[in-house]
Amino acid sequence: MTRILAILLLIASTAGAAAEPVNPWDRLMPMPSRVEPGEGRYRLGRDFRVAVTGKPDARIYREASRLLRRLDDRTGLFLTQAFVTPDSEADGDGMTVVVERQGQLQVGEDESYRLVIEPDGVQLRATTDLGALHGFETVLQLLSADADGYYLPALSIDDAPRFAWRGLMIDSGRHFLPVDVLKRNLDGMAAVKMNVLHWHLTEDQGFRIESKVYPELHQQGSDGFFYTQEQVRDVIAYADQRGIRVYPEFDVPGHATSWLVSHPEIAAAPGPYEIERSWGIFDPTLDPTNEATYALLDRLFAEMAALFPDDYFHIGGDEVTGKQWAANPAIQAFMKQHGIEDTHGLQAHFNRRVLEILTRHGKKMVGWEEILQPGMPKDIVIHSWRGSESLVAAARDGYRSILSSGYYIDLMRPASHHYLNDPLPEGSGLTAEQAQLVLGGEATMWSEHVTAETIDSRIWPRTAAIAERLWSSAEVDDVLAMYRRLDTIALQLEEHGLTHIKNRSMMMRRLANGFDIGPLRTLADVVEPLKIYQRNADDRYRSHSPYTLLPDVAVADARDARIFNRRVTEFLESGDADLVAALRSDLERWRSNHEAFSRIAERSPALREALPISEALHEIASLGLEALDRITAEGDETSAWSVTPGEIIETARRPVAKVELQIVDAIARLVGRAAGII
Amino acid sequence: MTRILAILLLIASTAGAAAEPVNPWDRLMPMPSRVEPGEGRYRLGRDFRVAVTGKPDARIYREASRLLRRLDDRTGLFLTQAFVTPDSEADGDGMTVVVERQGQLQVGEDESYRLVIEPDGVQLRATTDLGALHGFETVLQLLSADADGYYLPALSIDDAPRFAWRGLMIDSGRHFLPVDVLKRNLDGMAAVKMNVLHWHLTEDQGFRIESKVYPELHQQGSDGFFYTQEQVRDVIAYADQRGIRVYPEFDVPGHATSWLVSHPEIAAAPGPYEIERSWGIFDPTLDPTNEATYALLDRLFAEMAALFPDDYFHIGGDEVTGKQWAANPAIQAFMKQHGIEDTHGLQAHFNRRVLEILTRHGKKMVGWEEILQPGMPKDIVIHSWRGSESLVAAARDGYRSILSSGYYIDLMRPASHHYLNDPLPEGSGLTAEQAQLVLGGEATMWSEHVTAETIDSRIWPRTAAIAERLWSSAEVDDVLAMYRRLDTIALQLEEHGLTHIKNRSMMMRRLANGFDIGPLRTLADVVEPLKIYQRNADDRYRSHSPYTLLPDVAVADARDARIFNRRVTEFLESGDADLVAALRSDLERWRSNHEAFSRIAERSPALREALPISEALHEIASLGLEALDRITAEGDETSAWSVTPGEIIETARRPVAKVELQIVDAIARLVGRAAGII
Repeated sequence: MTRILAILLLIASTAGAAAEPVNPWDRLMPMPSRVEPGEGRYRLGRDFRVAVTGKPDARIYREASRLLRRLDDRTGLFLTQAFVTPDSEADGDGMTVVVERQGQLQVGEDESYRLVIEPDGVQLRATTDLGALHGFETVLQLLSADADGYYLPALSIDDAPRFAWRGLMIDSGRHFLPVDVLKRNLDGMAAVKMNVLHWHLTEDQGFRIESKVYPELHQQGSDGFFYTQEQVRDVIAYADQRGIRVYPEFDVPGHATSWLVSHPEIAAAPGPYEIERSWGIFDPTLDPTNEATYALLDRLFAEMAALFPDDYFHIGGDEVTGKQWAANPAIQAFMKQHGIEDTHGLQAHFNRRVLEILTRHGKKMVGWEEILQPGMPKDIVIHSWRGSESLVAAARDGYRSILSSGYYIDLMRPASHHYLNDPLPEGSGLTAEQAQLVLGGEATMWSEHVTAETIDSRIWPRTAAIAERLWSSAEVDDVLAMYRRLDTIALQLEEHGLTHIKNRSMMMRRLANGFDIGPLRTLADVVEPLKIYQRNADDRYRSHSPYTLLPDVAVADARDARIFNRRVTEFLESGDADLVAALRSDLERWRSNHEAFSRIAERSPALREALPISEALHEIASLGLEALDRITAEGDETSAWSVTPGEIIETARRPVAKVELQIVDAIARLVGRAAGII
Repeated sequence: MTRILAILLLIASTAGAAAEPVNPWDRLMPMPSRVEPGEGRYRLGRDFRVAVTGKPDARIYREASRLLRRLDDRTGLFLTQAFVTPDSEADGDGMTVVVERQGQLQVGEDESYRLVIEPDGVQLRATTDLGALHGFETVLQLLSADADGYYLPALSIDDAPRFAWRGLMIDSGRHFLPVDVLKRNLDGMAAVKMNVLHWHLTEDQGFRIESKVYPELHQQGSDGFFYTQEQVRDVIAYADQRGIRVYPEFDVPGHATSWLVSHPEIAAAPGPYEIERSWGIFDPTLDPTNEATYALLDRLFAEMAALFPDDYFHIGGDEVTGKQWAANPAIQAFMKQHGIEDTHGLQAHFNRRVLEILTRHGKKMVGWEEILQPGMPKDIVIHSWRGSESLVAAARDGYRSILSSGYYIDLMRPASHHYLNDPLPEGSGLTAEQAQLVLGGEATMWSEHVTAETIDSRIWPRTAAIAERLWSSAEVDDVLAMYRRLDTIALQLEEHGLTHIKNRSMMMRRLANGFDIGPLRTLADVVEPLKIYQRNADDRYRSHSPYTLLPDVAVADARDARIFNRRVTEFLESGDADLVAALRSDLERWRSNHEAFSRIAERSPALREALPISEALHEIASLGLEALDRITAEGDETSAWSVTPGEIIETARRPVAKVELQIVDAIARLVGRAAGII
């Protein structure tokens, strides 16, 4: 309780702050368990040194050296220390790291650390090097500057995660994502203290990993886009270096069309099969009544179990339509013979067989919530995706579970939505013991609508909000403070080569066919891609479609719109006249943008489908200005509007070119106020 | 001569054109041998199809499929064709590719192509698929848009390279560069029709390739930053797919400190040795009198010769100081015994031994010009780096040669400098037969001062100008036209993930510690990094230094400065009053920038060393405005200047923080005109 109190005090003291944080630790994300302010500042100079004592291992030395380089890259101090080695000494006034033992990349390993910054030195203590790695990230986030140069604020931090399982799932199945994409995202994960990469490796659209036992699987199932086993080992080693577990998902018995291209004999319907190129839920399914199916899975999983050192192994298990099973007389006969009543029962039968295989190969089974069927043993992990109820239900039944429902970052919802989605919400009714079974959660980056070029802008910065939800106390839930810190983190994440900011400009240059992207940026910063599954509605997309257009440049949490909307709320609540100038400036910029945008679209046909929404922006901004005029020049309320507000608002709400304007509700409220309605 | 005439006519007709090219082929780079305009436009639509006939191979199908995706990514047409396969048909109105045979990645292979675009179809014919690949890039560069959508202009092109060897050398030794850096640069090379990657793999600062025969070489010589052999094979396969040869350089007997960390016994002085972390020319050298040296080279080169399929193998051979040899009595005795007079003679002895080893392993030897010593056999290739005289001399002596002198892109000179540097300049005096021995050239990306983050901005777009020099006719030498096309190419190169534009903004956000980088960009766009080797003058840099500061954000050919300087020249030549407004606008922007820049530097100590040059920009811009005022308001010439122009100009010329202002000479000329001097 003391911890929580400390945090609440901190947040209260900064809630109304502007972009520059009042407290230096208000830039931390995830927020630590406990922060106590100190007196003074630790100055970073050219001779800043880091030493590690206790029982260090190779990982901590490499990461400590990387800490030096990252500090140097940000500060330009030309630090003299090139590497942290067993010979390094902190010379009294540097940073001393003490680790008691090498951390194991296992669920529940000690990840705590204690960081004490004083004007004359920095001490970082951790039971394991994994905790120390988290401490390094905290140090980097604390880096500050004043007139005298760079410093770390004096303070002491005691920190440990609330949940042991803080993951990101990356779907390499639907769109292949090269190794460098994974590596830079592993860096990003480490920066916000996430500790597990769930690697979704097989899908209807691709079997993305080299099998030496069944090479035809990747050879015929991937269009040549797969990871070699050496690449997989490289990614695992890279993640290990960052303190991140990596475990694979081989999605069975559904989502497996790509397997059946080379192995139609284990399908529940004859085939032949081709790699799927559309998005959706498809019927091809493994035959759970065929011993050949289990023989293949046994050999394949034996190979993959050896390749992935992690204890866990995800078998998918989601979205089995059951249509092929229902249509196959032999399968129906099998079910009758074994007293299996329905698709669910047959899948449970399949899962028990797969569980037996995985157990034999030393792995613990994880599966999407559909695998929770009566009679499943308690040592599986239930991955909740359709609703947190399944998570709670699983825990109540004694199953360990992880949450992804509410963390589907592919659905392009705002960070606040994910942030307020707690794995253990108040009122769950779980006992303390049951609550222990909720291991944590995973953000899920399904890749229908992302490519290597856009994926970072879908993962970051929103995933940092999820990382905080999984690390920090449930009481850390101030959305405004979260967004303020998110902007800082978004910038810092760029140092890992993440492209979430910079690729937007690049894509706009391509779209605009030139260096002048101002008007396109103005539009792109107030629209967002269609949310949930609306983008699929017209079946426009295939795996080879261009993901280079306006909805791909647009991001969730469109920043200009977010700031405008907040200002409108503040204005309507407070009537603060100081806000009017800012609102007017935005609205005027938007009103005058259409002409310039149209000129760009003249040379760029790819932008022409966005012309109607550019025009709608012009119209709605004009309406907003008229509303502002009416609100600020009292007495005009009764005169006729120069336009029909309802029509303009309705038009501006309409999705165009797979995006939608994000400022319409706020302007509608201005109109309502102007009309004296609200 | 007809060819040359056609090109000259084209250039003449567009020389005065604005940003938008008058002729659609004026966007091509390198300029083809011959272009003939046609009538009309070929329209690209959703159903655009590509088919390959003749004797296609796997490479052409994959690249043709990639052509489709690149067209689709640029146009957003949602092309229906997913892949080009042997079953594909162009349906009469698509693009038909005819290749006679599979190209071999060998020097002198046929790379010609003929492209005919007519309103009802596109035909691409090539002897080899390598030629067809070049044709694909031409098609992509020709992509244009009008009110009706995307099109290719009707024309016919006959094209073939002037030189067979059009290379880029990348130095992975001094700074390690991950595989994805190499891959995206291979894409960039292919886009401008370059065909050889010279991979500099070993240096004093690092032995960057896995050896299974002598694993201690990379284990102790690389700080863990090396390429595995699988990664090397991956890079070679990737390059092959783009029609690019890859050959390695193992630099011996100098530049080899990193080898000696694990093998001091083959050094010419006892050791022990450590990986070098400074920049410069160092003394550690292999012992050419020790049989152990050749035994190691023999086994290592046998391994590497098998790994790299290319015919050529570069042994470096540059910058041997000879100090260790001179100080070693045994080596001196050996020289006396064998009648070797000096360092050069001893290195020639060494090279003959190495040549014998390489020949035995089936490779042709390439070396920097120092290897050209009396008595070397004629089947080596001389790589000229100190001056083109050595190239000419080599050719006269009957040696084949390639040019890098004048193509040192690490020296941060303008593209124009490299562009006008011809491997066969007029007056070389070579016979036609001797000229044939000049195979081409290579841009050299030495990596003292580049990292994975900045290297693309050093290579591109300037290397495209070198690519044109090596591909196109010597008569294609209009610098203004080159720069105009270079801007277009720079944008197109971004589609390969190249970071030459986008990383600058990212680095500025880090430097400015925020999203608002306007004033920093204003400064960064008129300065350039110190040229030639000036940046090393104060011995500031180590391999682990931060390359994240203003000189790293700055690029050669600073665009704002280049445009301003050209306008000043035009203004002074023509007196055109229309130019004054543009000049004034630039100067006012620069004059008012210092205050805003200072505010950013307040929160960003890393920028503070640049404050004096920001102030100098303010001063010189003020001076420029005063000069403009005097020029335009005649009669004021005699009144006293409000400042002392000479002092301001002198201050503005001074390098600060490793950069220098690029607009000083132009402003000095304005001052001179204002003062009635010029």
